[in-house]
Amino acid sequence: MRILSGIRPTGKPHIGNYVGALKNWKKLQDEGHECFYFVADWHALTTNYSETSELKKLTKDVVRSFLACGLDPNKSVLFVQSAIKEHAELALLFSMIVPVSWLERVPTYKEMKQELSNKDLSNTGFLFYPVLQAADILIYLAEGVPVGQDQVYHIELTREIARRFNYFYGETFPEPQALLSVVPKLPGTDGRKMSKSYGNIIPLEFDAVSLEKMILPMVTDPARKRRTDPGNPENCPVWEYHKAFGISEEESQWVIEGCTQAKIGCVDCKRLLLKNMKRELEPIWQRYAEIDKDPRYVDDVIYSGNEKAREVARKTMQIVRERMNLLF
Amino acid sequence: MRILSGIRPTGKPHIGNYVGALKNWKKLQDEGHECFYFVADWHALTTNYSETSELKKLTKDVVRSFLACGLDPNKSVLFVQSAIKEHAELALLFSMIVPVSWLERVPTYKEMKQELSNKDLSNTGFLFYPVLQAADILIYLAEGVPVGQDQVYHIELTREIARRFNYFYGETFPEPQALLSVVPKLPGTDGRKMSKSYGNIIPLEFDAVSLEKMILPMVTDPARKRRTDPGNPENCPVWEYHKAFGISEEESQWVIEGCTQAKIGCVDCKRLLLKNMKRELEPIWQRYAEIDKDPRYVDDVIYSGNEKAREVARKTMQIVRERMNLLF
Repeated sequence: MRILSGIRPTGKPHIGNYVGALKNWKKLQDEGHECFYFVADWHALTTNYSETSELKKLTKDVVRSFLACGLDPNKSVLFVQSAIKEHAELALLFSMIVPVSWLERVPTYKEMKQELSNKDLSNTGFLFYPVLQAADILIYLAEGVPVGQDQVYHIELTREIARRFNYFYGETFPEPQALLSVVPKLPGTDGRKMSKSYGNIIPLEFDAVSLEKMILPMVTDPARKRRTDPGNPENCPVWEYHKAFGISEEESQWVIEGCTQAKIGCVDCKRLLLKNMKRELEPIWQRYAEIDKDPRYVDDVIYSGNEKAREVARKTMQIVRERMNLLF
Repeated sequence: MRILSGIRPTGKPHIGNYVGALKNWKKLQDEGHECFYFVADWHALTTNYSETSELKKLTKDVVRSFLACGLDPNKSVLFVQSAIKEHAELALLFSMIVPVSWLERVPTYKEMKQELSNKDLSNTGFLFYPVLQAADILIYLAEGVPVGQDQVYHIELTREIARRFNYFYGETFPEPQALLSVVPKLPGTDGRKMSKSYGNIIPLEFDAVSLEKMILPMVTDPARKRRTDPGNPENCPVWEYHKAFGISEEESQWVIEGCTQAKIGCVDCKRLLLKNMKRELEPIWQRYAEIDKDPRYVDDVIYSGNEKAREVARKTMQIVRERMNLLF
C-alpha cells in the first residue's frame, strides 16, 4: 500500500506528535508499506504566516525527528513539501474544480478559527489548505493516509476531489483511505489539550532529568486530593500516558487497583510511567545525538528524499497536464 | 518601464482583443518598454474548467496572434503561463497573506458570476484568480499593467498584496500601476457586448470577403430606419468601429455630417469603415499566413520566451523564499 502523511513544522516535535503520528508511521514503514512522509512547511504558513523566522530551522528539525523516531530514508521517502513545487501546481489546478462551499463546510475550518482566536485566520491560504492537502496526497497516488479523527473529513474531501477530477478529465487518481490511528490524543501535562501556548508540552528531544521534572508534577485525578483518597484512572491524564507508553497487563492491574483502592500514591504511578517512557524514548534521544554527529546528514537525507518524491510528482503532473489539455 | 499583460485563451482572438489590448501592447513594445506578454492558460481554467479539449490549440493560437499583431519575440518576452510553474508557487504563498474578504469584494467576482450564469463559477479557482493574477504581475516585478477599466480593481488588489508582503517579509515587490487603455470596448456586430455566445464576434484572423459579410449587415442607429432618416453616430456601433480603426479628421466630418443630415446611407459609411479596417488588418492577415509557412515557428517562439520569463521568475522566487524563510 502506498502511504502518505505529513507534519507541519510549527514548533519542535513533541511526544504528542510521536504517539499520535510518528510511532505509527514507523510501524507502517516496518510493515513494508511504501511510505512518503513529509514536512508540510507550506501548510505551516496557513496559520503562522506572520512569524516565519524559525521556519527553516523547524523544517529541518522535523526531519531530524523523523530519523530519531526510526524512520529510515532507505525504506521511506522523507521530504520537504516546499521542495516539490508540483504540489503548488496541482493545488492550483484542483482549485479550478473545487466549489468554495466544499471548503467553507470543512468542520475544522470554523473550529480552528475559534480555537486559534489569537491568530488572524481570515487568510485565503487557511480556507484553501484542504485543496493543497488533497494535492499533497493525490500527487503521489497515495492509497492510505494515517490521520487523527480531526482529519477524517479532509480525506473525504480529497476523495471527492479525486472523483471530480476523474469525472471531468478521465480516470487519474485513486481514492485514498484514511488510516485512523488507534491511539487517542495525548493530553498536556496539565490535563488540557497539548498546546504550545499552554506550556504543557513534553518535547520529543529531551532527557531523563527534564522528563522527570515534567511528569512528577503532572495533574492527576482531582478526586485524589490526599494519598488515602481513591481515584479513577479514567479521569487521570497520567493514565492516558500509560496507555500510550506500553504499560504491561500486570502493571496495568497494579495501577488500576492501586489507584481505585488508594493502595499506591500518584508518584508511585508516575515512577512506573517514567520507567516505561524512558524505555521507549531513550533510544530516540540517543538517535538525536547520533544524527547530530554528522552535521550534513539531515541535509543529505532531505536532498535524496526530495529527489525521490519529485520523480513521482513529476510523472503524475505529466499525466494531469495531458488530461487537462494544458500546453505545459 | 517593465510592462506585463496577458490574454486568456478562451477562444480564437478577435478584433476586440486587438483593439482593446494587442494594438496597445505593440505600441508599448515599439516605445521601447520592457514588455512581458503571456497566454493566461491557467486563468482560462477558472471559468472554462469543464471543457478543455481545445485548450492547447487555443493557447498556441494566441501566440500566433501576438506575432501576427506585430509583437516581436526579439523585443518582447512572449510566453505561456503554465510553463512558468513559479506563478503557481507565488500564488500559493500570496494566499497565506490575502484575506478572503479581499477576494469576495472584487467587483467583477459577483458581476461575472451573474453574467456567466450559464456557467458554474462557484469554484475556488474563480474566487482565487486575483491572487494568481497578482503573482503573474509581481513575479516579474512589473511596473505597468495595460488593462481595461474592469481590471483596475485587480491591479489595486495586486498593489495591496505587494504592500502586505513587503510589510510582513521586507521590501520585495514594487507597486504596479494600471495603464488604462484609452480605447473603449468594441461592441459586437449586433451592438451588444462582443461575446462568443452571441455570435457577434469578428475574428482577428479573417479575410476581406468574410469581413464584408459581417460589417455590411451590422446594426446601426435604430433611428435610421430609412435612408432619409437622420441618425446619430453616438448611437451607432459602426461609429465605435470607426474610432477604433483610424478614421481621419476629414472622413470623420463626412460621416458625422452625412449621418446626422441623412446625406449618406449606412452602407456608404460601412464601406469607408471597411476600407480603414482592411488597411489596418490586412498586414495582420498576411503575417498569419507568413507565420504558418514555418510549422515550428510558434513553438520556437514559445520555447525561447518561456526561457526568458522563467529566468526572471526564478530570481524573484529565490528572494521570496529567502524572505519568508522557506527551506526551498
